Amino acid sequence: MANSKSGVKNQTALLAAGHWLILSVAINVGLLLKLIHDGNLRIDWYGQQNVQDNGGRHSSYAAERKPDGQIQNEYINLDHGDPTMYQSYWKQMGDRTDVVISGWQSVSYFSDTKTVCWFLEPGFANAVTRLHKLVGNAETGNRHIVVGTGSTQLFQAVLYALCPYDAPEPMSIVSAAPFYSSYPLITDCLKSGLYKWRGEVDDFNKEAPYIELVTSPNNPDGSIRGAVFNGSGQILVHDVAYYWPQYTPISSRADHDIMLFTLSKSTGHAGMRLGWALVKDEAIAKKMVKFVEISSIGVSKDSQVRAAKILDVISDSYEDSKASNESKRFFDYAQEEMAKRWSQLREVVNKGQAFSLPVLPAGECNFSHHTFATQPAFAWLKCEQVDDCESFLKTHKILTRGGVHFGSTKKYVRASLIGREEDYNEFIRRLSLINSGESP
Amino acid sequence: MANSKSGVKNQTALLAAGHWLILSVAINVGLLLKLIHDGNLRIDWYGQQNVQDNGGRHSSYAAERKPDGQIQNEYINLDHGDPTMYQSYWKQMGDRTDVVISGWQSVSYFSDTKTVCWFLEPGFANAVTRLHKLVGNAETGNRHIVVGTGSTQLFQAVLYALCPYDAPEPMSIVSAAPFYSSYPLITDCLKSGLYKWRGEVDDFNKEAPYIELVTSPNNPDGSIRGAVFNGSGQILVHDVAYYWPQYTPISSRADHDIMLFTLSKSTGHAGMRLGWALVKDEAIAKKMVKFVEISSIGVSKDSQVRAAKILDVISDSYEDSKASNESKRFFDYAQEEMAKRWSQLREVVNKGQAFSLPVLPAGECNFSHHTFATQPAFAWLKCEQVDDCESFLKTHKILTRGGVHFGSTKKYVRASLIGREEDYNEFIRRLSLINSGESP
Repeated sequence: MANSKSGVKNQTALLAAGHWLILSVAINVGLLLKLIHDGNLRIDWYGQQNVQDNGGRHSSYAAERKPDGQIQNEYINLDHGDPTMYQSYWKQMGDRTDVVISGWQSVSYFSDTKTVCWFLEPGFANAVTRLHKLVGNAETGNRHIVVGTGSTQLFQAVLYALCPYDAPEPMSIVSAAPFYSSYPLITDCLKSGLYKWRGEVDDFNKEAPYIELVTSPNNPDGSIRGAVFNGSGQILVHDVAYYWPQYTPISSRADHDIMLFTLSKSTGHAGMRLGWALVKDEAIAKKMVKFVEISSIGVSKDSQVRAAKILDVISDSYEDSKASNESKRFFDYAQEEMAKRWSQLREVVNKGQAFSLPVLPAGECNFSHHTFATQPAFAWLKCEQVDDCESFLKTHKILTRGGVHFGSTKKYVRASLIGREEDYNEFIRRLSLINSGESP
Repeated sequence: MANSKSGVKNQTALLAAGHWLILSVAINVGLLLKLIHDGNLRIDWYGQQNVQDNGGRHSSYAAERKPDGQIQNEYINLDHGDPTMYQSYWKQMGDRTDVVISGWQSVSYFSDTKTVCWFLEPGFANAVTRLHKLVGNAETGNRHIVVGTGSTQLFQAVLYALCPYDAPEPMSIVSAAPFYSSYPLITDCLKSGLYKWRGEVDDFNKEAPYIELVTSPNNPDGSIRGAVFNGSGQILVHDVAYYWPQYTPISSRADHDIMLFTLSKSTGHAGMRLGWALVKDEAIAKKMVKFVEISSIGVSKDSQVRAAKILDVISDSYEDSKASNESKRFFDYAQEEMAKRWSQLREVVNKGQAFSLPVLPAGECNFSHHTFATQPAFAWLKCEQVDDCESFLKTHKILTRGGVHFGSTKKYVRASLIGREEDYNEFIRRLSLINSGESP
C-alpha cells in the first residue's frame, strides 16, 4: 500500500487534472457565497492590492518611488498599519543594532527546555522583561512569557487555550465595536468548533464562559478601554499592542491575566513577525505553547535574537548615561514624531467641516513625565458630509479601511499614521485640499 | 461603552477570579475526555517532557552535558526529529554562512508586492529556485513559491486553500499508514468545519473531493510513495520534506501540483521555522498566501534572509570550483553521515533477533551519481519480541515515538537518526546490549 503504483499513474493524473477544475469552481462558489453572506468580514489585510496592481504603487517601497512630485498623482496606502515610520530612526542608529548570526545557529527546535515556553530564546525573554520594567507598562512578575509569530498567532493560541475541546457549543468571542478588523477574520477563518466570533452583541449567555477582547489603546479608535460586557462568565484577553509611551501616557503597570504585545507596534519591526504574551496562569500558558507547537513548532530564533538586541539597545539608552548622550532615545523620538503627526492632523481636520476625529484623554506619562493626550497609530476619521468615507477618500487616491470592517459604519475609516513621512505629508496635503473644497 | 468602568472593577475582578477556576476545571475535563476518546492523537510533539523533567535531560543541549561517560546513565531522546546532526557541519563552515542584519531591516510587513506571495523575500525565492535546479529534486518552472513558518504552517495553508468554506461537510483528509504523527493533530486541533482527519480509511466517498497526503520519502518509515486511494475526487498534496540527496537517491524532478519543503530537514535549520511550497495553480497559491496572512501576517524576514545565504553557499560550493575545494560540500557530508549511521544501525539490528527494519529501495542518484538505498532521517524500528516497543525502549532509557501515533501498532517505534553524534552512538550501544541480552 505504501509503494508507488506507477501502473495507474497516468489515469490518476487525468482524474486529478479534471478534479482541479471541479475544485477550483467549488472554491470560487464557496468564496462567492461567503462574500455574499458576510461580505463585511471578508476583507484583505493586504486589501487594496488590485488598486495598486492597476497603476497604483505600494507606499511601503522607497525603491519603487518615482521622482519627487510624482507622489501627488499616486495612491497613498494608509490601509495597513505598516510601521515604516520607524525605519528612518533605525537607520540613524547605524550599526548599533546590527546582529551577526552564524550558520550553525538556529539548528535545534529547542531554546530552553527548562521553561514552559521551550522555544523562547532566553535572551529575548530577558530583554522583554527588562524593557517592561524600564517603561513601566506591564507587570512581569509571576508571569510566563509565551513568544509567537506576531501577536496574531498568540491571539489564536489564547483562543485554543481558553476554549474547552469538548464543549457542546463554540465559545462566544466578543468585543465592543469598533474592534480590530482582523479579529473576526482570524476567529472564523477555519470555522472552528471551539469558538465563534460574535463581536458586539448582547444576545448571548453572560453566565456561561465567553471571551471578551479588550484592546487598549483601542485599534482602530485609540480609546482607553476596560471590559464592557461584565457577565459572570467573562474571561478577559487584553491586547495591549499600543500601550507604549509613543502612543499614550503610561498611567500604571498593566496587570491583567493575559496580555498580548507585538514588536510591530512597539519598535516598528513588523517584518520580524514577533509577539509575546504575558500570562499569569501556568495551565493557560502551557496550552498556548501547545498551540504554537502544533501550528508552527515554535517561532523563528533568528527574529528572537535580533529582537533581543534591539530591545536591549533601547533599554541601554535609558539606563546607561553614556549610551544616552549619543543620539535621540527611541521612545523620545517616537513620542515626538507621533505628537507632530497628530498635531498636523488635528490642525487640518479642524480647519474645515469635512472630517472629525475622536477626542482622546490626556494624562501624565509615568515614563516620560510629559502630559499629553493619546496619539494613536491610527486615525479613526469620520466623514461628516458623505456616507461612504472609504469610497470618498479613494476618489482622492487615499486608501483607508472602512468602518464596516471594524463593526462600525461607513461614515468612518481607519487611516494609518505610522507610514513613511512622504506619504504622511501627502495625506495631510490632500485632506487640506478636500477641506478647502479644492480638487486635490 | 468604550470607556473603562472602574466602578464595577472590583466586582468584575472577583467574578473573573472565580471564573478562572471554572474555566481551568472545564479545560481539564475537556482534555481528559479528549484523551480518553482518542488518546492516540493527543501526543506531545515535545512529548517526553515529564521524563526529562524528572531527572532526565534533553538531548538537544550540549550546554547541559555532564562529563564524558555520564551519558550512559541518562535518557537519550530520539522522539523528535531535531536535526542537531547538522550543527557540526555548519560549525566547520566557520563564518562563510554568517549574516549581518541591520536594525533598520525587517521593518515593513511587505517583501515584494509584485508577486503572489507578498511576504516572500526575493533573495530567498531565488536561492530556493537555484538549489532545486542544482539538485534536480523538484520542478520550479511555472510555479508559485509560498513561504511559511515551517512546512507545518504551509500544510494548514493547503487545507484552507483546498477546502471550500461553505461545503455541507468537512473535507476528508486521508493518508496511508504509517503517516506523520503531526498531521492528525494539526488537522483536528481546532475542530474545523472545513476539513477532518480520516487517516487510513476506506469508508469515505471517493467520488467527492478529498485530500490525500503523500509523503515521500515517508515519515516515519522512509518508503517511496505514490497516491494509494485513487478515487476520482482525489486532490494530492505532496510532502517532499525528505526528498533530498542525503536521504534518498534523486530519481527525477518531482513535478506535483502542490509540494511542501522545509529547511529543517534540508539544511538542518529547524530553529528558523521556514518552509516553502511549490504550487502550480495560482488560485490555490493565493488562498495559501491568504491563510499565512490571516494566521501570522507573513513569515520572519530575518529567517528568510539567513536561509537565502545558507542555500546560496551550498549552491556556490557545487557551482564554483574554487569554493568547492575549500571543504566538504553539504550534501556530500550529509549523504555520507546518513550512510554511516544507517550502516551502523543495520549492523547492530541484524546481529540479534530483537528488532527489524524496513527494506528500502536502492537506485542511482541523478545528483551525486552514487547508487544507494534510501537512508531516512528516522528509523522505523519493529520490536520482534515485545508488544509495546516504545515502553520497552523506555526501560532502556531510549525515548522514541510509538507506532500508534502514526496510525500503526505498538510493535513499531520511530527513532530519530539526525541527532547529535554522541546520542546516536549511545543509541547504537544500547541496541547492541539489548540484542546481546545484556542489561545496558
